[in-house]
Amino acid sequence: MTYDAHSRPPKKTIGELLFIERIRTRASASFSSAVRLGIGDDCAILKPIPGHELLVTTDFSLEGRHFRRDWHSAASAGHRTIARGLSDLAAMGAKPLAAFLSLALPRSAARNTRWLDGFLDGLLSLANTHSVPLAGGDTSESPSDQILADIVLIGSAPAGRALRRSTARAGDLLYCTGSLGGAAAELAALAASPRRFRSADSSGDHPHLFPQPRLAAGAALLRRRLASSCIDLSDGLSTDLTHICKESKVAAEIDAVALPIHPLAQLLGPDHALHAALHGGEDYELLFTARPTAKLPRALGGVRITKIGRILTARKPRPQITLIDRQGHRSALAPHGWEYFT
Amino acid sequence: MTYDAHSRPPKKTIGELLFIERIRTRASASFSSAVRLGIGDDCAILKPIPGHELLVTTDFSLEGRHFRRDWHSAASAGHRTIARGLSDLAAMGAKPLAAFLSLALPRSAARNTRWLDGFLDGLLSLANTHSVPLAGGDTSESPSDQILADIVLIGSAPAGRALRRSTARAGDLLYCTGSLGGAAAELAALAASPRRFRSADSSGDHPHLFPQPRLAAGAALLRRRLASSCIDLSDGLSTDLTHICKESKVAAEIDAVALPIHPLAQLLGPDHALHAALHGGEDYELLFTARPTAKLPRALGGVRITKIGRILTARKPRPQITLIDRQGHRSALAPHGWEYFT
Repeated sequence: MTYDAHSRPPKKTIGELLFIERIRTRASASFSSAVRLGIGDDCAILKPIPGHELLVTTDFSLEGRHFRRDWHSAASAGHRTIARGLSDLAAMGAKPLAAFLSLALPRSAARNTRWLDGFLDGLLSLANTHSVPLAGGDTSESPSDQILADIVLIGSAPAGRALRRSTARAGDLLYCTGSLGGAAAELAALAASPRRFRSADSSGDHPHLFPQPRLAAGAALLRRRLASSCIDLSDGLSTDLTHICKESKVAAEIDAVALPIHPLAQLLGPDHALHAALHGGEDYELLFTARPTAKLPRALGGVRITKIGRILTARKPRPQITLIDRQGHRSALAPHGWEYFT
Repeated sequence: MTYDAHSRPPKKTIGELLFIERIRTRASASFSSAVRLGIGDDCAILKPIPGHELLVTTDFSLEGRHFRRDWHSAASAGHRTIARGLSDLAAMGAKPLAAFLSLALPRSAARNTRWLDGFLDGLLSLANTHSVPLAGGDTSESPSDQILADIVLIGSAPAGRALRRSTARAGDLLYCTGSLGGAAAELAALAASPRRFRSADSSGDHPHLFPQPRLAAGAALLRRRLASSCIDLSDGLSTDLTHICKESKVAAEIDAVALPIHPLAQLLGPDHALHAALHGGEDYELLFTARPTAKLPRALGGVRITKIGRILTARKPRPQITLIDRQGHRSALAPHGWEYFT
């Protein structure tokens, strides 16, 4: 592709130049005082907020792994691409400053601008909702037939105040925002009948296709000093709670009956609903802990808060995570966020 | 691959977890006071330098487009991946603070850690040379047989002082660091006989396989206020000078006889050598302008400085770039850094 018969180094193609120009034009509509210099030089220049630290996260969105063109509209792929990074910032209570998009399109998609426009629609619409400018990135022709994206989000938080996953303490109570299992339930429905979701857009409640990163809730947790630790639910409750337990060196207990199950998951029946809520992943809600004396409101940043368990001392033979079922029986809960090679 | 028969959302595989752990272990060896929190939470935390601005650049390194496993050793691929980003920082005179690596490996390469170790050797060796910690990133299984990398570099420069490509003025003189055409010449030799380069490493002069980003020269240009504009030579002199001319709204003139031709390019004979120097690309030297009254030293940051032309007023029918050949004849020079779809 690149190293052609004349073995020249990789050059930008005209198709790429057109798509760079398209991104530049679309991105220039977004403006922010944090961006001193956007797309067009070797680097973008950001102005940090005095007394703040910077938070940086990068997330792949690769066709065939994170989205499928026959399942996800271009707008959904764009929305999901930036939602992942924004959710990482939300988990630490940070305010987003700027996004950077690296995007590689197959030759066919670079020529046909319809997919690119839809992708940018989805990505920039969510960026605009949260006042995040697209300040730069990279473009390339994809070496395969797959669309490859990598998003970088840079955020800001007062020095020493960013929420972490490593600071939960025994005795803390465990909370989550919103509801759980919706993304897994919608994904199952999407797989069964992609056509049903053709006209889905971000105005509806689509926990898989258009997840809503909880930036306002995360910012409120930080500002009001309510959370002792926080993480976003990207891998699933069982796995993300394991991250908190490992990094904080604690154990935890979940009350199954307390879990706020998303209506789409409830349609699956109680067993599947519970499985989706515990292991589904990609709900992009926040999972956080708070001191037992902390007064938590019912909602934060417009989203409901639910107490779902508590943090315990890590002590053999206590499991890292214990699930208490409807009948009050306790059992060890293993993280199911990882797949083995088959 | 991801959306399997059970249509579960993408989860980290055990292969991925091993390779994340491997990156984390290798990266933790690098330490920097700028990184408050590295790999292991939702975001990395960076401490900005008071009075400084942040510079951000992202660059893809995609197998089949930016490197080939049958031509480039894993160490060369890793070196080149981070060299591209470091060179972008050098072009703006910035000091690198941290790097972030997004890396997707095909299943076979994730299992066999030899390639990954070689890649990290190459990447971290150049990072360590310039005291840049690897502070985070993302990992995924590649949806194809290709290795996919995206590197983010974050740098720092005193507020308002970063070198730009848009600030050249008519009357300025045009300079470059080091020598030109070496990367294109070595790439041609590599394509002809990849085996000859099997044992190449970063200790030798390998302008294509192990390019050296000119961070010390860029920092000196900024610190000593020598440059009126700057860019790195990634696309090739004709194309990168066009970027300066367009963004600065000026024209330029190059003296062919003054161009510092790399010894590897000289072996190609005068015509091909000139072509490699003008259009080759990937030399990762700096191209900069300075006021005619500026006193430029012979070398900056350990690398030679050569005057190669001058900046003119943009005025029809003057071409954007004029080449003055050995006989003193003037001709218009078109940018050759872009390829058309064939």
